[in-house]
Amino acid sequence: MPAPENPAARKIYDLERSRVFHSWSAQAAVDPLVITDARGSRVVDGDGRSYLDFSSQLVFTNIGHQHPRVVAAIAEQAQRLCTIAPSHANEARARAAELITELAPDGFEKVFFTNAGADAVEHAIRMARLHTGRYKTLSAFRGYHGGTAEAVNLTGDPRRWPNDYGTAGSVHFFAPFLYRSQFHAETEAQECERALAHLESLIAFEGPDAFAAIILESIPGTAGIMVPPPGYLDGVRALCDRYGIVMILDEVMAGFGRTGRWLALDNFGVQPDLITFAKGVTSGYIPLGGVIISDAIAESFATTPYPGGLTYSGHPLACATAVATIETMQDEGIVENAAAIGADVLGPGLADLARRHPVIGEVRGLGVFWALELVADPTTREPLAPYGASSPEMAAIAARAKADGLLLFQNMNRFHLCPPCTVDAADTKEALQILDDALSVV
Amino acid sequence: MPAPENPAARKIYDLERSRVFHSWSAQAAVDPLVITDARGSRVVDGDGRSYLDFSSQLVFTNIGHQHPRVVAAIAEQAQRLCTIAPSHANEARARAAELITELAPDGFEKVFFTNAGADAVEHAIRMARLHTGRYKTLSAFRGYHGGTAEAVNLTGDPRRWPNDYGTAGSVHFFAPFLYRSQFHAETEAQECERALAHLESLIAFEGPDAFAAIILESIPGTAGIMVPPPGYLDGVRALCDRYGIVMILDEVMAGFGRTGRWLALDNFGVQPDLITFAKGVTSGYIPLGGVIISDAIAESFATTPYPGGLTYSGHPLACATAVATIETMQDEGIVENAAAIGADVLGPGLADLARRHPVIGEVRGLGVFWALELVADPTTREPLAPYGASSPEMAAIAARAKADGLLLFQNMNRFHLCPPCTVDAADTKEALQILDDALSVV
Repeated sequence: MPAPENPAARKIYDLERSRVFHSWSAQAAVDPLVITDARGSRVVDGDGRSYLDFSSQLVFTNIGHQHPRVVAAIAEQAQRLCTIAPSHANEARARAAELITELAPDGFEKVFFTNAGADAVEHAIRMARLHTGRYKTLSAFRGYHGGTAEAVNLTGDPRRWPNDYGTAGSVHFFAPFLYRSQFHAETEAQECERALAHLESLIAFEGPDAFAAIILESIPGTAGIMVPPPGYLDGVRALCDRYGIVMILDEVMAGFGRTGRWLALDNFGVQPDLITFAKGVTSGYIPLGGVIISDAIAESFATTPYPGGLTYSGHPLACATAVATIETMQDEGIVENAAAIGADVLGPGLADLARRHPVIGEVRGLGVFWALELVADPTTREPLAPYGASSPEMAAIAARAKADGLLLFQNMNRFHLCPPCTVDAADTKEALQILDDALSVV
Repeated sequence: MPAPENPAARKIYDLERSRVFHSWSAQAAVDPLVITDARGSRVVDGDGRSYLDFSSQLVFTNIGHQHPRVVAAIAEQAQRLCTIAPSHANEARARAAELITELAPDGFEKVFFTNAGADAVEHAIRMARLHTGRYKTLSAFRGYHGGTAEAVNLTGDPRRWPNDYGTAGSVHFFAPFLYRSQFHAETEAQECERALAHLESLIAFEGPDAFAAIILESIPGTAGIMVPPPGYLDGVRALCDRYGIVMILDEVMAGFGRTGRWLALDNFGVQPDLITFAKGVTSGYIPLGGVIISDAIAESFATTPYPGGLTYSGHPLACATAVATIETMQDEGIVENAAAIGADVLGPGLADLARRHPVIGEVRGLGVFWALELVADPTTREPLAPYGASSPEMAAIAARAKADGLLLFQNMNRFHLCPPCTVDAADTKEALQILDDALSVV
């Protein structure tokens, strides 16, 4: 995009480029869109152009931008009490923990609050290590768990490579992904069975008594929204039971309505030991993350101190935002809306695009959590961008969609369509039409 | 403390204990103070008792509780725009980065925003490793850098011990601390010279070309507020230059007015390569941290992407809070107030207590950042609590102070007096009187 023409926006653009060091970027190449306003499923740039936000930024504005009830709750709690230390007690924090545990399966009564997803994952792993007295971890290739040292080493995408220090004991496995099967499988059932056998083989060869934890996203997010086949997560649960391994489900991106259920694990009826969350819990209005802790693991720290913490654990303003977000989603049927949009509009619409655009190799997803796997050749399934990179074709599609007013989440050869859970049918159809046109450029 | 008698507060107390997993604690022993209100230097509990908050919670409410101008700025930005992704640009973020770089020494033009101090430290270390192409790190015993995997392994206090995984390459050194000299020194100048020689010996024996970074708190905080002697930080700078090591100063606790200067490093005129910050930048009203990056290190990532990031980097609502906090501190002379209180009231008052209470072995600090080192015997300097633990005597003093309406920051055999930078002389004198009485219990 060219820099904004509006002088006020141009000033912000220049200041941002000169003073702000950007994530995951070569700084000289940073060319940001100045966002001046946002509402529901739309954002507005510095020149007044409006975009449908089907990225939900980084897949976190589940309640949409600037929901008035959450905005009002922030102002109200700020007026009352912004902050206290974690050692004290506070109504907003206690109430947020109560609401969050009520959304979890039975047998989860405590929440450890963090600032975001990465530190939630760090603490979940630490709890698992101390609970089991073991050290090694299992995590999936094609997975993402955060940017801090431990979390990025659990990560199974190329963002780990330049950060791969001190990974002793971090073992990665392949999770099921039939479209690009590692296991030469031809059916979902076969893929599931073989992926579980692969996982058990790794455990056998790395040490059956060595593993503290297995962590996986209930549905992998940035890595491609591969919905696990029926029986896979149950199979992982059985392996964890057999080998005494703590099962951590990472719900940072998939949780809080994204899949049309409160937690993505609700789609599978599986019972993990620890659940990590962030993003949707506050729709990112104020940073918040955490770990929902099963009673058995909490019991390990009943009389033995838990050796971890952070300055802002259970931050009152963040927790009040979580309370308002969850209560609003409950009162307005927002999770149900996400399910209906996925089943009735977004899912069928993407399937229709796939029938008409051979560049779409596969459509996967549920709720408001969908991936298009783009291929240069539908027969060989050669990706439209190589692993770990983009391509001119991917950039051209994204640029056309953006020029026509649609923001997409892009990763390698995939576009993800992840609007807010509040998106309506009209906006979804408009996005599908823009995407239809954009796909025609290749 | 007994649980609150007020039924509404008792409900919060019970809910907090049943649902919230607390930092650094055995969960069955959690016995929190319910905080229902706070203003300036005071907080109010669930039974309406008021306390002078000389802990500033965890030493972060530098502007005091509920400053109306910052509260109003939060409500205003929430109304405008709560959140965008890090890849976009936003006025609040750009303006916060501008203000923060203006507070740093010359030669620092960029800020990488994080959620808090731990991830700021993680990213500073990563930048240093990628900038130098080296791996090993040096950090101080008697230091704290955060709770995530990398940050806690850099930490030099007992919180590291149960988390000591994957520390290959993490080397700890002793920084100057004349009262408990490792170097058998008798003067500050001798302690300084010998501490620098010790550090250079470690570099020689661990590998002169091995070190990516040395990280130290400009003034160590939780570890005891040991103000470095004249020449020490300059000496560390010279060693960094000699061996090609990145010098990281951690200003998470000591920065943003706490020492009576904007940054603690301003007391020493030293020029580091990276500066980490959090806490005071927003007074904790909304979580925010970051790394201020020297131009030479930023240049390493001009055309090579920086391989790190986080969902909420440069969060608009957090950044707007930083802007309001900094501008208010500037307009109201709050840093100057901290300096004056330290020089005229708190420092002299603590020195007076030390003359009258032999249990005080040493008083150290500046601004609103003071430590009392308590000893069982002033001659042997035997600490009033063992390293890594508390003692009945320490607990009795803290309990008496609390009962009389004073919250202190406590660590091992020390009490820290860290009121907001906005504290006035009357409240300071009241706190000194309560402390005087409390010290009389031992």
